[in-house]
Amino acid sequence: MELSNIASILESLEETIIYKLIDRVQFCSNSNIYQSGKSEFPGEEKSLFELRLFYQESMDAVFGRFVCPEERPFCEGLPHSKRKGILQFPELNIDNFNKINLTKKIKNEYLELIPEICIKGDDNQYGSSVEHDIYALQAISRRIHFGSFYITECKFKDDPEAYKKLIKEKNSCEIMKKLTRPEIEEKILARVKEKVTYAQANVNSNIRKIITPDIILRFYKKSIIPLTKEGELAYLYNRKIT
Amino acid sequence: MELSNIASILESLEETIIYKLIDRVQFCSNSNIYQSGKSEFPGEEKSLFELRLFYQESMDAVFGRFVCPEERPFCEGLPHSKRKGILQFPELNIDNFNKINLTKKIKNEYLELIPEICIKGDDNQYGSSVEHDIYALQAISRRIHFGSFYITECKFKDDPEAYKKLIKEKNSCEIMKKLTRPEIEEKILARVKEKVTYAQANVNSNIRKIITPDIILRFYKKSIIPLTKEGELAYLYNRKIT
Repeated sequence: MELSNIASILESLEETIIYKLIDRVQFCSNSNIYQSGKSEFPGEEKSLFELRLFYQESMDAVFGRFVCPEERPFCEGLPHSKRKGILQFPELNIDNFNKINLTKKIKNEYLELIPEICIKGDDNQYGSSVEHDIYALQAISRRIHFGSFYITECKFKDDPEAYKKLIKEKNSCEIMKKLTRPEIEEKILARVKEKVTYAQANVNSNIRKIITPDIILRFYKKSIIPLTKEGELAYLYNRKIT
Repeated sequence: MELSNIASILESLEETIIYKLIDRVQFCSNSNIYQSGKSEFPGEEKSLFELRLFYQESMDAVFGRFVCPEERPFCEGLPHSKRKGILQFPELNIDNFNKINLTKKIKNEYLELIPEICIKGDDNQYGSSVEHDIYALQAISRRIHFGSFYITECKFKDDPEAYKKLIKEKNSCEIMKKLTRPEIEEKILARVKEKVTYAQANVNSNIRKIITPDIILRFYKKSIIPLTKEGELAYLYNRKIT
């Protein structure tokens, strides 16, 4: 539970997010998959994307995914885990991980990203498109929630008295200021842009679709970082304070 | 259905395979997940890996994955597709795609690869490890089967009379010779090695685990290319000949 270790894990998740987005953009935007009633599942109202998300999370739930704090479910009504090994997370001081669940906003931001990074149009590769949507979405959500829980706990432990005071005062504005490290954010943005560039540096663009690095930089800046900070604030307000 | 188009798709799948393997090696080998009786699912004999594969393919089957020729199932007893849009593949001259199914061998080769690329040991990240195993396995299988079906059909169409003769004679040895293009194989191997190198060129190896490019080159040479050729031969023997 050292800030540098936690930051390393967040940093490592950057490649995972980038790879999964690059895999998604190999297919067209395929807007049909996001429209309700067009799943080709008879009598089904949900979009193919929503259906796939529910099926994926139902499977994941059985395998115990949502036992982990950084894995927050997008869907409700999921089955229980069948795995009996019980993991504990004593380093987090919160009684219900789902008090920090930003999945609704993450999904909205992601769905706005898709038309920006995918080639407009329809290639009929609906199954592959939703499959890679879900993988990318889960990787992004893991990054945001991992930061919300672990980064915040580290920051709190660094200066507990000051945080306790601000939390009692419900001074969200000052808490946000205290949580924010602009020089780290700049570093993340520069690094992400570089990673997207490198990941595609040697790619034959006649064969593989490419993502413009600036779009991913903007997605980090406008969505991933602000949502992580929103989660950090929520964690502090829900943290057990002794 | 031109050979150069089909080859482009195969080439594009290289990055997908590499990305998914790199994602997998972020976790230890975790040999427990491959051992039967250790899934932590009460009363379950199958390994966690086998269970996850079955659950994943059951979901994929509902979404119609195995309607596509290049998506061959690893498991038996899967549910039917709920999607009603019926895809056709008139360019392939075979009545049952599952006559070409190399998944058993692909799985064996993959399971031998894991201890070579992952850090030995146990990090308790069982859920993430099997999740990424399945994604990598499916990407590898797609590449092998895509080649088996489409590359072979193109090669056949290029010289149908010669192939027909050899097929009638069951002259596997000569067919294999005719299918093999050593200069293309050399090119693939060099390209794959380069891609693994580039994909990790700018990675902070204190934070991300790295794959040695030569191991993936060897996997292509000893597993992916030979299995694709085995599939090509099988396709020819099962092709409808008019």
